[in-house]
Amino acid sequence: MVNAQRLKQNLEEISKFGALEGGGLTRLAFSKEEEMAKKYLINLAKNAGLEVQVDGIGNIFATLKGSDSNLPPVATGSHLDSVKEGGFYDGPLGVICSLEALQTIKEKQIPHLRDITLVVFSCEESSRFNHATVGSKAITKKLNLSNLKEIKDKSGISIYQAAKSCGYDIDNLENQTLKDNQIYAFLELHIEQGPVLEAKQIPVGIVTGIASPIRYELTLNGRADHSGATPMSMRKDALVCASEIIIAIEKCAKAYKTAVGTVGFVEATPGVLNVIPGSARLGIDLRDICKDDLIALDKDVTNAIKQICSNKDISYELKELSRSFPVKLSEKIIKTLENEALNLGIKTLNLPSGAGHDTMNLDCAASHIGMIFIPCKDGISHNVKESIKIEDSVLGANLLTKTIITLSNEV
Amino acid sequence: MVNAQRLKQNLEEISKFGALEGGGLTRLAFSKEEEMAKKYLINLAKNAGLEVQVDGIGNIFATLKGSDSNLPPVATGSHLDSVKEGGFYDGPLGVICSLEALQTIKEKQIPHLRDITLVVFSCEESSRFNHATVGSKAITKKLNLSNLKEIKDKSGISIYQAAKSCGYDIDNLENQTLKDNQIYAFLELHIEQGPVLEAKQIPVGIVTGIASPIRYELTLNGRADHSGATPMSMRKDALVCASEIIIAIEKCAKAYKTAVGTVGFVEATPGVLNVIPGSARLGIDLRDICKDDLIALDKDVTNAIKQICSNKDISYELKELSRSFPVKLSEKIIKTLENEALNLGIKTLNLPSGAGHDTMNLDCAASHIGMIFIPCKDGISHNVKESIKIEDSVLGANLLTKTIITLSNEV
Repeated sequence: MVNAQRLKQNLEEISKFGALEGGGLTRLAFSKEEEMAKKYLINLAKNAGLEVQVDGIGNIFATLKGSDSNLPPVATGSHLDSVKEGGFYDGPLGVICSLEALQTIKEKQIPHLRDITLVVFSCEESSRFNHATVGSKAITKKLNLSNLKEIKDKSGISIYQAAKSCGYDIDNLENQTLKDNQIYAFLELHIEQGPVLEAKQIPVGIVTGIASPIRYELTLNGRADHSGATPMSMRKDALVCASEIIIAIEKCAKAYKTAVGTVGFVEATPGVLNVIPGSARLGIDLRDICKDDLIALDKDVTNAIKQICSNKDISYELKELSRSFPVKLSEKIIKTLENEALNLGIKTLNLPSGAGHDTMNLDCAASHIGMIFIPCKDGISHNVKESIKIEDSVLGANLLTKTIITLSNEV
Repeated sequence: MVNAQRLKQNLEEISKFGALEGGGLTRLAFSKEEEMAKKYLINLAKNAGLEVQVDGIGNIFATLKGSDSNLPPVATGSHLDSVKEGGFYDGPLGVICSLEALQTIKEKQIPHLRDITLVVFSCEESSRFNHATVGSKAITKKLNLSNLKEIKDKSGISIYQAAKSCGYDIDNLENQTLKDNQIYAFLELHIEQGPVLEAKQIPVGIVTGIASPIRYELTLNGRADHSGATPMSMRKDALVCASEIIIAIEKCAKAYKTAVGTVGFVEATPGVLNVIPGSARLGIDLRDICKDDLIALDKDVTNAIKQICSNKDISYELKELSRSFPVKLSEKIIKTLENEALNLGIKTLNLPSGAGHDTMNLDCAASHIGMIFIPCKDGISHNVKESIKIEDSVLGANLLTKTIITLSNEV
């Protein structure tokens, strides 16, 4: 159905922006590299005859007109930004497969009532601002202009400033937000970022729900003393305390069936060899697809922190960075995907997503939301070694295309 | 004996260079702040009528001529640089007390055969270059010019470059190194940096030996994966591994009577919330005043690292940064200090030093080496809260002065 050669080539070309010497790429949100990738994508979309618009936070909308543009459109897309030292596919695969779907529908002149819009969301990864899915949150009013001014990267640049410095008209963003049900259906194709599909040798996954994290920044305050002259028994070492907490978080998460708990960053201050760390700062990420278990894990972890700090006579501050709960994807889209896969003879598996995605933010703006997963090698993502089989992507793109056609002809 | 008012005032004045708003100071090696403090000290020394010379690494020598300059001199001093966010006394107290000793001897026209030299060593703290007592190592050939070019700070500046940028003629340094027994006796007064003297309410300590660290930089290589989509059972989290090692080091050190083990810095890469740390880097500092126990602790720690990494299937690289062993101070000087303290009616305690000091590097260059300790509040040092009683310093300075006079008249 789709043009596999073009899909492959577009993927290769878009991988060049921010590419690293040893493989993989770094394409942080609002960086020169992401801007170049977006520009390249806009050119591809324009050359394919799509109508392109860019909103105040840099989200791209490339539309293929349907025969009844009064109906809410079908939308499909993903993101082009990456983590630091990430892979080629987390985000771009969904963008390129979506573009391929629209190009295929246009070239084959497949009739469709509704407009079909390719969406590229800005700043999906939290690597730069410690906030994920910023573009989709901004157009669904989950982040407002004053939030975007408050949230800053390590060098003190706010999302607002970063978007502005890329030339986006961010002051106009609040006139561009989506109303409830403004979109009929939103579909995102993405790599699984986990090991399930590959292990079961299934080329395409149909996502049933999306886990979303509870995140904290924890600051521990012990006492900075001379590392040579302070006996072990008289120390208040914030890093030893942090280490016990890191191990406790792992233990807490392991007690639940599907929960995960991660400390992604740590900093010990002053951070030199001749001083016992007087304070430590760590970033905690807790997730589960089961809401009740996530709430229980959150309680376990916060209790463990309290207990360990109390035992060690170390004071602490626990700052909540974000709190959101698992989102269920539309039964209607799951059924449509299952039917179309059957028609196309593609073997699929229904599975949840442990990672968050822009799709979860569209739960009100779109009447129906759904996701397709493509397996990735060893479940590795957010890593330069991220790898997929192009054949799986082609099957995924075919399923995406067929499903878009069906949905865009529903009244 | 010494001028207590002048001692107090000089201490207050020298504390201003690099002073922080909330107390304490940051005066890193070869920084603008250290340079200003050195310049101020040189002015004080010149005004006191001392002959000042500065060597190729910025060590200062301010000499009061004796009646027989052919005899090897008595030297006394310490350092003016500090850790990041350090206190007022670690280093400067010894420099100012030594200056006070020389001024007192000069003013009171106390006869002395040998020259008496105040020494200010460069870069005693390892905060900037991860290498301690650099100035005293350089003039005792424990570091050569090519070492000084290799050792770099976080921004890639070598000690060589740093010294050169301060205007020191470092290329000439190797002509300025000390020969064995070139100095008759070296004495350093320093804060204890531990809690012993204060706990026993003894104003002056006589140091019997100096512990010196074995230091490592440990790099752990796990696998960076998506923190939401990677089940707990399938992770290779380098930071969890680092945490187990940090706790193991604490446990190993606690098993010995006087040993200490510290992880002073840690870094997890990529260091963001949505990626499991693929690698971690930590700095390890092991010390003991008992050589055998230090060797045993070193073995325990390296075995623990090996075991933990093997259990977790994480590869590692253990880079030795430095390895030196405890130094015994001269029996002769300990005896002289005990006698002079008795004469002055000062209560003293003989105790070892858990921290390293420039004195240990002079074990060959000086025929005799010794140290005097002054208690510090709660044993706290390398911290903005470092605090002393000025009365203790005056007693220490008196003991230092009396001992210098005695030693400088020995033939």
